[in-house]
Amino acid sequence: MARVLKYAMVGGGPGSFIGGAHRRAIAIEGKAQLVCGAFSRDAAKSAQMAEELHLDPARCYPTYKEMLAAEAGNIDFVVIVTPNFSHYEIAKACLEAGVNVSCDKPVTISYAQAAELRELAKEKDVLFMVTYTYTGHVTAKYMRDIIKRGDIGEVRMVMAEYPQGWLAFEGDNGGKQGEWRTDPKRSGGVNCLGDLGTHVENFIAMATGLKIKKVLAKLDIVVPGRVLDDNDSVMVQYDNGASGFYWTSQIAIGYDNALRIRIYGSKGTIEWFQETPDKITIIDADNTIREVHRGYKQITPTAAKYGRLPSGHTEGWLEAMGNLYTSFAECILARENGTFTPDMIDYQTVAAGAEGLAFVEACLKSTNNGNIWVDVEE
Amino acid sequence: MARVLKYAMVGGGPGSFIGGAHRRAIAIEGKAQLVCGAFSRDAAKSAQMAEELHLDPARCYPTYKEMLAAEAGNIDFVVIVTPNFSHYEIAKACLEAGVNVSCDKPVTISYAQAAELRELAKEKDVLFMVTYTYTGHVTAKYMRDIIKRGDIGEVRMVMAEYPQGWLAFEGDNGGKQGEWRTDPKRSGGVNCLGDLGTHVENFIAMATGLKIKKVLAKLDIVVPGRVLDDNDSVMVQYDNGASGFYWTSQIAIGYDNALRIRIYGSKGTIEWFQETPDKITIIDADNTIREVHRGYKQITPTAAKYGRLPSGHTEGWLEAMGNLYTSFAECILARENGTFTPDMIDYQTVAAGAEGLAFVEACLKSTNNGNIWVDVEE
Amino acid sequence: MARVLKYAMVGGGPGSFIGGAHRRAIAIEGKAQLVCGAFSRDAAKSAQMAEELHLDPARCYPTYKEMLAAEAGNIDFVVIVTPNFSHYEIAKACLEAGVNVSCDKPVTISYAQAAELRELAKEKDVLFMVTYTYTGHVTAKYMRDIIKRGDIGEVRMVMAEYPQGWLAFEGDNGGKQGEWRTDPKRSGGVNCLGDLGTHVENFIAMATGLKIKKVLAKLDIVVPGRVLDDNDSVMVQYDNGASGFYWTSQIAIGYDNALRIRIYGSKGTIEWFQETPDKITIIDADNTIREVHRGYKQITPTAAKYGRLPSGHTEGWLEAMGNLYTSFAECILARENGTFTPDMIDYQTVAAGAEGLAFVEACLKSTNNGNIWVDVEE
Amino acid sequence: MARVLKYAMVGGGPGSFIGGAHRRAIAIEGKAQLVCGAFSRDAAKSAQMAEELHLDPARCYPTYKEMLAAEAGNIDFVVIVTPNFSHYEIAKACLEAGVNVSCDKPVTISYAQAAELRELAKEKDVLFMVTYTYTGHVTAKYMRDIIKRGDIGEVRMVMAEYPQGWLAFEGDNGGKQGEWRTDPKRSGGVNCLGDLGTHVENFIAMATGLKIKKVLAKLDIVVPGRVLDDNDSVMVQYDNGASGFYWTSQIAIGYDNALRIRIYGSKGTIEWFQETPDKITIIDADNTIREVHRGYKQITPTAAKYGRLPSGHTEGWLEAMGNLYTSFAECILARENGTFTPDMIDYQTVAAGAEGLAFVEACLKSTNNGNIWVDVEE
Repeated sequence: MARVLKYAMVGGGPGSFIGGAHRRAIAIEGKAQLVCGAFSRDAAKSAQMAEELHLDPARCYPTYKEMLAAEAGNIDFVVIVTPNFSHYEIAKACLEAGVNVSCDKPVTISYAQAAELRELAKEKDVLFMVTYTYTGHVTAKYMRDIIKRGDIGEVRMVMAEYPQGWLAFEGDNGGKQGEWRTDPKRSGGVNCLGDLGTHVENFIAMATGLKIKKVLAKLDIVVPGRVLDDNDSVMVQYDNGASGFYWTSQIAIGYDNALRIRIYGSKGTIEWFQETPDKITIIDADNTIREVHRGYKQITPTAAKYGRLPSGHTEGWLEAMGNLYTSFAECILARENGTFTPDMIDYQTVAAGAEGLAFVEACLKSTNNGNIWVDVEE
Repeated sequence: MARVLKYAMVGGGPGSFIGGAHRRAIAIEGKAQLVCGAFSRDAAKSAQMAEELHLDPARCYPTYKEMLAAEAGNIDFVVIVTPNFSHYEIAKACLEAGVNVSCDKPVTISYAQAAELRELAKEKDVLFMVTYTYTGHVTAKYMRDIIKRGDIGEVRMVMAEYPQGWLAFEGDNGGKQGEWRTDPKRSGGVNCLGDLGTHVENFIAMATGLKIKKVLAKLDIVVPGRVLDDNDSVMVQYDNGASGFYWTSQIAIGYDNALRIRIYGSKGTIEWFQETPDKITIIDADNTIREVHRGYKQITPTAAKYGRLPSGHTEGWLEAMGNLYTSFAECILARENGTFTPDMIDYQTVAAGAEGLAFVEACLKSTNNGNIWVDVEE
Repeated sequence: MARVLKYAMVGGGPGSFIGGAHRRAIAIEGKAQLVCGAFSRDAAKSAQMAEELHLDPARCYPTYKEMLAAEAGNIDFVVIVTPNFSHYEIAKACLEAGVNVSCDKPVTISYAQAAELRELAKEKDVLFMVTYTYTGHVTAKYMRDIIKRGDIGEVRMVMAEYPQGWLAFEGDNGGKQGEWRTDPKRSGGVNCLGDLGTHVENFIAMATGLKIKKVLAKLDIVVPGRVLDDNDSVMVQYDNGASGFYWTSQIAIGYDNALRIRIYGSKGTIEWFQETPDKITIIDADNTIREVHRGYKQITPTAAKYGRLPSGHTEGWLEAMGNLYTSFAECILARENGTFTPDMIDYQTVAAGAEGLAFVEACLKSTNNGNIWVDVEE
Repeated sequence: MARVLKYAMVGGGPGSFIGGAHRRAIAIEGKAQLVCGAFSRDAAKSAQMAEELHLDPARCYPTYKEMLAAEAGNIDFVVIVTPNFSHYEIAKACLEAGVNVSCDKPVTISYAQAAELRELAKEKDVLFMVTYTYTGHVTAKYMRDIIKRGDIGEVRMVMAEYPQGWLAFEGDNGGKQGEWRTDPKRSGGVNCLGDLGTHVENFIAMATGLKIKKVLAKLDIVVPGRVLDDNDSVMVQYDNGASGFYWTSQIAIGYDNALRIRIYGSKGTIEWFQETPDKITIIDADNTIREVHRGYKQITPTAAKYGRLPSGHTEGWLEAMGNLYTSFAECILARENGTFTPDMIDYQTVAAGAEGLAFVEACLKSTNNGNIWVDVEE
């Protein structure tokens, strides 16, 4: 039997949503075990979290640097779940210590940082996952598989949107979560586009395999008093000549987390909605609808293998994130066993993370120059 | 009791879909009666249609000119349902003869033509309706009413789309209907945008009361072998500072006639879908959904008056078009009775039709100049 | 060209919903013209309606008897749209005068009456249509056609329901409409079951071709103060051994007119919903969903011929009723021309109407005897 | 900090779906840890599972009896996930050993067995949870809370259904899962009703607080060659006079796991669907729809406390089961700490499990006596 991997966490202290999410997602499959951490810049809070997690107090560190110094040799990977602006320095330290990294998205707050990490990961030969959760769904992987094998023909048009409503109101910047997102000092020039636009960009890249050639973006600041974008429209041109349109928003009242994907091909159409992730709709050229559910025999083996339950028994967001870790753990073990090949990687890497930042920066440049077409950095 | 109006028809011969549609829409309410026509450029076909309609053969004319010469004094209005490129000359002749006009959309194939008709209608003091059918739905009028009274606050973002799939396939230009639409000689520079984009532009103008200040358009020719647009993306900037995005397409496999409107305001959201026109969704600031149906007591009287059936008893496209004629007939009779005031007009006029052409031409100019912002002609 | 038929109307005076509905439904196709009527027991109201309809005042009669005496030879059919309890006597008089009848449903308020009319219609050799509107939809006829040809195999289970919410509230008997429905003197022993249950019974009989062998009914009186049923549960056993369950209700808050049909066969499933009648869902044995729309090429010719508009252009309740009259008019003309055969009848007849009453009476008997199985009269 | 509980598992060996489900559900929250087990009657398979789970081989036992003998003092609870027919003897042994029990549903295959366990649990003063997963959803608990506080007034009618399609085909008894379910020797007289009907009965009891007074059931054997029911219709009469109808089926092609609940009250309506468990629909008396999502501020605190993620981030079936264990673990710890009160129990107990068997047996009796009303054993 495969051994249980050991991991450390940076960030994810008391009150952190995303830290608990990663821990639960990993626990579902039980392929890795949390053994140490630096959960907060506040040592007392960090210790409190260690206690809640029944962790050895001696393995709870005041800083990630001390943790890496003491534990780099004992752990299989580090999970970075701090606010976005600190990802870069922490990830860099992990890479330099030769430790595999799982980092929440966006991987950094500039393309330059992300590209540097991407090169460093190559140089140090470590694995670097960026946790784009939605790509973990069985149906998302199925979408990728059937587009690749040609089920809908050539992709011609992509309509992708990710509207939310939580920042729709004047005088309300969305509490703790929203505060740093809407603050240019901590967010790196964009708010909505960094949080939601990068998800859309990554999901479409994963699903279609298309590269974005250029973008034309209009980043709106809608709510009075705000200084960063909260409603973004982006026209996209792909390398195969297809068009796309990405809409991300935080002012769409009544929308929770409405990542919706529609892909139009020369032979059919695919529709997918994040809030009902156990199904996917394929429309054939003759208008036949195939609503395929996770668990159906139509699901490709490379997607189906991540499912846990029969169709009709819902799997959700934690399960999708768990799937990322399933692949990450497999790759780590395969490298240990000498059976690793790069095509085993079934998660989004730091290279994909860097593409996200290149997308963001091209959109910013476009909007700052009057909504002109801007090439996306390779 | 109000007398039954008399109308003539130009176009709408054997095999014409739209001619029969107008005749049926008018018949539902029975406020006007077809008395004469010039149904086809082919006299035999025209006579055949007259017979089918149980019309006096003597009142079936070989040309619209002869018809106007003989009947201008006997009729209350003319319905023009010929292909788009001939609307201009026929409507002009009607106006010059002092006859009220109901013309299918788009009213002409250039802004100059439409503006000329608009001015001529003013000069001759005749009524000129352009039959944008979707604006006739009770729920569409209700949308207009509640936006006007502030139910969703200030409009901030409009997402409007009208995808179809009937022209998705290479080597198939959609039969008789599609042939002239995809032919630049008869379509006036655009295919998809002229057919669908004008519907979207008009519907949003009607619903929100917003004026488009400028557009940035990307008209795609997707299907190989085609010379006019079949997939259009348009960024819109309104006079109140709000943003919009209009997507119209004929290559979206699996979509019939999917005009979908979403309007995001500072206090709520409205969603409406042409294929289920008996309901409209309003989302309040606290996420409460109000799915209001035609026939509910919430419907404003100015919208409700057009309904015929209790809620849950579907009314469709013909009924919506019938509603346009209800208002048109009321206005004609009110002018006869001396009770007419301009605010009675509850249908789209030639002025709205001209705005549609201005929109189309601005989009064409934008796309021909590399997708730049272009002001829309007033 | 076929001549325009002439019809008379009994009932449908000022304020009547159903009279106007029939007139509009007939007007859509224009195959028949209203020429005379007895619109109300109140002569002044009758005359008012005649004026509104631009009818010759001389052909507006104070009673249906006088009308029949004067007009029987001039008209092709009579439309009966009076309250249910008077259908019997009026229809009987029409039959005896040898005039074709179109009567709203339920055809009478007892099985004995309906059976008598059925036999009388045979004897007098006249056509007798009962206007079960929902059976007129293109998708309803398509359902019938594909079940007949075996697309879903043998029918095994039927789930049919028709909930409404308009009588849910204590102290509110639903105004003019509800007043006589909830009054045993005028309703014939049932309220909800007579209005809604007969629709369900008829629709399933039409769609599946199955005969009901026996029923086990539980008719509830839910709202305090009411004396007739307002919520009905009926277990059904068909002649092929299949089971069914029919639920009809007037206390389902939030439901307008929610006739929903689900039919489970040995090879697939069919789902249909009255409030979105332009589509029907078929699920194949491999879970493939085929959402077929009116206007699609899959629609059988015997159903498709009733459609007027392309798919995506909604047709509603009036159009469905219009379709009944299309077939009725065809049959009348075919009898005139000597081309009639009984299989041309594509509407519900008085025989189907009698089956509805047999169903109602068996349900009443079942519920009055403690919810036991009761055979349905042939 | 609360200590981590220790649990044992009986059943759940290699290839078992339900064993892995319980282990994952518990792991999400990490409040309990698997320490020993008797995973299979086959000792080799049991050992294989222990190894997969990284368990101490010495704590993997060939039989549950040996396990209890060795470990009763070391564990906080036992999870029983064997086939239904063996639940009784295993649970009894646990109770006699004074160990808390979590048992999959149905708790036994007869009411007598279940009632005996219920009494034994009282006598031994141990906790006994039956894992009705669907009751664990936040939205299910919210439904219970708002019905209790009167949001929809008095419950008048319940429509509940749980159709599946996996056993629709002749000659296919659904593999390993279906084989014992359709076998009377191992299933206890019912197939579909035992698996699905008990879920419906329990869910409605939990949600409404109503007791079933009597049932009238029609258990169908639809698929040729089968000897147990595969399609069940049950009329229900509750103690408050309300009516209900429960439909459960395994022959509904195209349905995965379609537990759908609709509850009609004197002031409103509630709709809930298991396959989209993160939302619930409430319709008010004025037709306003409130689609409330897990994570919305409207959710009652007693339901909201089980949520992990913001609204729009899906939680599924494992999370719902995890919620049962959250309450179970809280109760176990509270008893240890002396803070336990019975109203802390927020999971379904063996008493609810016994009610399920009483329901099944009354339905069997009804159907065997010609579908008569049968009182349900208290």
